[in-house]
Amino acid sequence: MGELCVHSVLVTGANRGLGLGFVQHFLRMPKPPQWIFATCRDPKGQRAQELKDLASKHPNLVIIALEVTNPASIKAAAAKVAEHLGGSGLNLLINNAGMVKPKTLDSETLEDMTETYTTNTAGPLLMGQAFLPLLKKAVQGSPGSGLSCSKAAIINISSIGGSIASSFGWDMMQITSYRCSKAALNMLSKCQSLAYREHGVLCVALHPGWVQTELGSAAGHTPPVTVDDSVQGMLKVLSSLSEKETGTFLDWEGNVIPW
Amino acid sequence: MGELCVHSVLVTGANRGLGLGFVQHFLRMPKPPQWIFATCRDPKGQRAQELKDLASKHPNLVIIALEVTNPASIKAAAAKVAEHLGGSGLNLLINNAGMVKPKTLDSETLEDMTETYTTNTAGPLLMGQAFLPLLKKAVQGSPGSGLSCSKAAIINISSIGGSIASSFGWDMMQITSYRCSKAALNMLSKCQSLAYREHGVLCVALHPGWVQTELGSAAGHTPPVTVDDSVQGMLKVLSSLSEKETGTFLDWEGNVIPW
Repeated sequence: MGELCVHSVLVTGANRGLGLGFVQHFLRMPKPPQWIFATCRDPKGQRAQELKDLASKHPNLVIIALEVTNPASIKAAAAKVAEHLGGSGLNLLINNAGMVKPKTLDSETLEDMTETYTTNTAGPLLMGQAFLPLLKKAVQGSPGSGLSCSKAAIINISSIGGSIASSFGWDMMQITSYRCSKAALNMLSKCQSLAYREHGVLCVALHPGWVQTELGSAAGHTPPVTVDDSVQGMLKVLSSLSEKETGTFLDWEGNVIPW
Repeated sequence: MGELCVHSVLVTGANRGLGLGFVQHFLRMPKPPQWIFATCRDPKGQRAQELKDLASKHPNLVIIALEVTNPASIKAAAAKVAEHLGGSGLNLLINNAGMVKPKTLDSETLEDMTETYTTNTAGPLLMGQAFLPLLKKAVQGSPGSGLSCSKAAIINISSIGGSIASSFGWDMMQITSYRCSKAALNMLSKCQSLAYREHGVLCVALHPGWVQTELGSAAGHTPPVTVDDSVQGMLKVLSSLSEKETGTFLDWEGNVIPW
């Protein structure tokens, strides 16, 4: 297990919370990626200010508009990323963008269910499809066999809330539409791992811990884990992954979480 | 474990396949339910002919129009069921309606994802919400403590395809949108079991086996299990369930399936 060393990475939902944390940690690495693609829905808006400030200081940070629920937006973003990369590939796709509506089971609506699923589950599927050619290109450009995050990987930011076996935190937060979307995202990660293994692409679902972000605090609670600790932990986990771990569900400290 | 003995049952997607099989088996019981509510999208259509023939011979069989992806349609159906039942409750809600699109991971679209999820996952959530008052009424009208299908239960017809741990049949059928929707349905079943336990309502996810239905044969395969054997097996499993099994995922022979 060494330091994570990637030529290029893309992070969705990168204007705040864990996404912004990932960008900051990549920028601070002793050997930072040559390309960090930070995507968010509205790069021109107020909520992307911190990301814009960073980009003005770091030429390897590129902000790209991307709405993960919009196939045309995803395709346009993939074309822009390919243009920046020239002939080289994308090593790491971090599907981080997500949403939660703090609801009880009885108050969930059809709209809650479909909106949450579209963002948290269908989005990562479409992202995987659109960026697969660039991930495959990264594999072709990497020496050696086997799977690793330094070669090519899809990282789906899931949640222990999506663990059917644990039903973690039910008494505090029912959030059924969120739990269903994350259980489905875990299934998607498994499907991606099975389909993309032959291409040399590693795929995992990661639980970032219960983190002090807007999403983590959505139901009025105070989560125990800082963004910094969570991201640092996840990057350490990513650096340790090999073909043995593709298709698994791990937390930010490397522990296996039951489905 | 005795014979399943219910006063009233509702089955969605009852015009064909497993849904029709459930209706036929309930009608054939030595002590059939006093009310069998068989719902389908288009009771007037050609595809409901077999159900209509049965209803003309069995006054305890009531056909009701219901589209599980339409909240207004669900509410109207619940009102009709309540009217038939007079003051009594509904013992058994069988969320059987489902769909699959035979696709590879690479060919799935946003529409495939949301359409399959709306039918297979959001539908059962909305059905549980709408029929909970009638299920609670059945509990109040039943003697004794503990949970059972003869008292009140929600049965979600899931699939081993939704087992993240097993990734059953991947090499034959990728059907990622279906797998994701069924993994999410398993999570929903767990959530319903946690929320509705205090009301005395049992909730499980059932894998019917790989059955000779339109859905089971969708990808051009010949499934090994007949509708009759599957339904008979599931009814035997239902008759054996108690509070120990609420929130679990079982197959038509009573085996626990890993999430």
